[in-house]
Amino acid sequence: MAGFSIDSISAFDARYSLPEGAGSDAVHTNPQYCLAVTRLGSAKGNLCGAGFALTLGDGNRLVCDAIELLARPLRGRPIEDLMAQFGRISREMADDPMLRWLGPHKGVVHLALASITNACFDLWAKARGVPLWRLLLDLSPEEVVRLLDLSYLDEVMNEREAIELLQQETGKREGRECLLRTGYPGYDTSVGWMAYDDARIRELTMRAVSEGFGAFKLKVGSRDQSRDLRRAMLLRECAGDAGTIMFDANQQWTLPVARTMCAELAKLKPLWIEEPTHPDDLMAHVSLAREIAPVKIAAGEHIPNRVVFKNFIQSNAIYYLQADCTRLAGVSEFLTVSLLARRFNLPVVPHVGDMGQIHQHLVIFNHIAMGHEPLFLEYIPHLRPHFLFPAHVEGGRYRTPEEPGSSTDLKELVAQSCG
Amino acid sequence: MAGFSIDSISAFDARYSLPEGAGSDAVHTNPQYCLAVTRLGSAKGNLCGAGFALTLGDGNRLVCDAIELLARPLRGRPIEDLMAQFGRISREMADDPMLRWLGPHKGVVHLALASITNACFDLWAKARGVPLWRLLLDLSPEEVVRLLDLSYLDEVMNEREAIELLQQETGKREGRECLLRTGYPGYDTSVGWMAYDDARIRELTMRAVSEGFGAFKLKVGSRDQSRDLRRAMLLRECAGDAGTIMFDANQQWTLPVARTMCAELAKLKPLWIEEPTHPDDLMAHVSLAREIAPVKIAAGEHIPNRVVFKNFIQSNAIYYLQADCTRLAGVSEFLTVSLLARRFNLPVVPHVGDMGQIHQHLVIFNHIAMGHEPLFLEYIPHLRPHFLFPAHVEGGRYRTPEEPGSSTDLKELVAQSCG
Repeated sequence: MAGFSIDSISAFDARYSLPEGAGSDAVHTNPQYCLAVTRLGSAKGNLCGAGFALTLGDGNRLVCDAIELLARPLRGRPIEDLMAQFGRISREMADDPMLRWLGPHKGVVHLALASITNACFDLWAKARGVPLWRLLLDLSPEEVVRLLDLSYLDEVMNEREAIELLQQETGKREGRECLLRTGYPGYDTSVGWMAYDDARIRELTMRAVSEGFGAFKLKVGSRDQSRDLRRAMLLRECAGDAGTIMFDANQQWTLPVARTMCAELAKLKPLWIEEPTHPDDLMAHVSLAREIAPVKIAAGEHIPNRVVFKNFIQSNAIYYLQADCTRLAGVSEFLTVSLLARRFNLPVVPHVGDMGQIHQHLVIFNHIAMGHEPLFLEYIPHLRPHFLFPAHVEGGRYRTPEEPGSSTDLKELVAQSCG
Repeated sequence: MAGFSIDSISAFDARYSLPEGAGSDAVHTNPQYCLAVTRLGSAKGNLCGAGFALTLGDGNRLVCDAIELLARPLRGRPIEDLMAQFGRISREMADDPMLRWLGPHKGVVHLALASITNACFDLWAKARGVPLWRLLLDLSPEEVVRLLDLSYLDEVMNEREAIELLQQETGKREGRECLLRTGYPGYDTSVGWMAYDDARIRELTMRAVSEGFGAFKLKVGSRDQSRDLRRAMLLRECAGDAGTIMFDANQQWTLPVARTMCAELAKLKPLWIEEPTHPDDLMAHVSLAREIAPVKIAAGEHIPNRVVFKNFIQSNAIYYLQADCTRLAGVSEFLTVSLLARRFNLPVVPHVGDMGQIHQHLVIFNHIAMGHEPLFLEYIPHLRPHFLFPAHVEGGRYRTPEEPGSSTDLKELVAQSCG
């Protein structure tokens, strides 16, 4: 494996229009799915590591520009050396004195770090010729923890405790590996976009049921609350009493409105209510979580880093942790949050800013190596045609990916030189 | 006043090197002070409204690019109409569906909104031919509150309550206006930058004392904790028992280290310890605040928006609110946080990302119209030569600015056409 190095670095601004109404929610009326792509080229093997962060429109260029600033220290580094101490290097990049003010650890620069980090993991797995999930499973607990920046987590989990947690699971791995054959369950977000009318929701939910899905999500947070409630009842009806349903308000509600709406929606026995209010409002989540129990709160697509996740965990503000490796600082901070979650016995159900491409690898690792329950992984198919190896979902389950890397290659970039 | 419109919009990337060691702290070893400037031109009167956000280096260009994306809806708007409903428009810009994902309400896009908002206020005051503090004092409580986006604050302060708070202070204004003659007290941050040696700290503090300053800040958070403690004792010695001293760790400490260091530093009776740990770590601040009482915690230069401030206030995590109109969404979100602080009886002592240029106006308004105590305003002189009307500090006090606008004009831009 010696000799694979980061010989070129470039960013690519990929933008994809969606079918009418797809992707719409309470705050995003007409999103484009945009990927701020990092490409890391290795002359040896003619390899190209690709990673990305998601954005929803015009600002994608800002993240691409931030990638080019932030990734400079990686040029020339052998990938194996880099990944042997990635936690330290990730922290150095996150704390770049010339860029740190712009966050720190949030917003455009952190999205850029996500993209860069994901490209490093992709190049690493390609250099080793294995899918990312396999690469991660082959690491020792110590090697995994050296990938992570655990700073500012000291009082809840230090390096030794993180290693011990992984060590304790080692003996239980074999029994969990059947997941690789059965595939990881998915849930369908695309039955219930905000702009879809009732007939569309009914049609798509019935189709998803027939395809083997057992869990479905609906966008709420409309200005017309009666519309929300009508559609919520419709989803429960289509999914049946045994179906699992979730509601997603995309941050739209103030705390008083969230109280009212959550109380109404709780009657339909959803598994969770997602992003009921502003994602920065920890204290509002604490209040709501208490009030709507036993219904749980899910959040994470706008929780920017491990420190904020730590706070949400410590204060019982959320239950389902929707960590996203395209919002957090990539694969490594996703793993950090997953370890934290395991320590506090909370489930991780990723938000898939990556359309599940990378997370399909990560949830396998979370289950087998950390002991997370394999609940289900969000499924959003709208970018399928653009990936070289799109996630393969059949019978409502993600089939285990076998190609080397992290399934991030875009078709339009395959023919282009890397860097 | 009719006819002043935003006829042109441009961004300018201004970067200024600092004298050796100036501006250095625990996380910024060798900062450049960079201003991401928004310029709004009005053909009538040939006016140019200028606002800015601070950054500390390479990323300033990213904020400038974000300004150009985010400010597009302002083109052509009459400034009086805009400011008559600025709260609503500010919210629309903050929630731009194409850019919101990049925050929301934090990082590069929020810094851009700060810069744009500050330029709107500057143009408005220039159009009226008055300094910003005078413009604000001349508004009715209702007009002030229409400048503000109070969303997600409902459970602690709604519009009516904000108006009532201002109304209650109306009768007490006259007695407070002597501040306009005496000037607003300053405190000196520039005696204790991280890279300064002991002799320099001693020399600068003694000079500041002789110039009339009574309060001084020292950077701590060095890797060498004994150096921090030695310098802290030195500052106490130079300031005397009657002097007010503050220590600023710039987020460097983990919670366990912060506990140890705060306990040691508290013995020197500082007024506050600033940014003792990661700015996102609300729960760590809550623990520390309890443990180091009666010494108080100050923070704010990295608290990105009113929602996070609300959380810090609600949970007694900080006492001194270092709101900064170049970190928050400009003058209007600064005023929102100041109202919140007043409601909870907490002092606002701005962090001056603007070098005090804009905040010298805002603290006058906070005292006279809201009833905030005029504690003191941070003073950092390093960019003085670059401003057309630099803050005039004499005898340790900011003299009340009299030029129209918000004192944001840069000399190098005066000769350049606006837009």
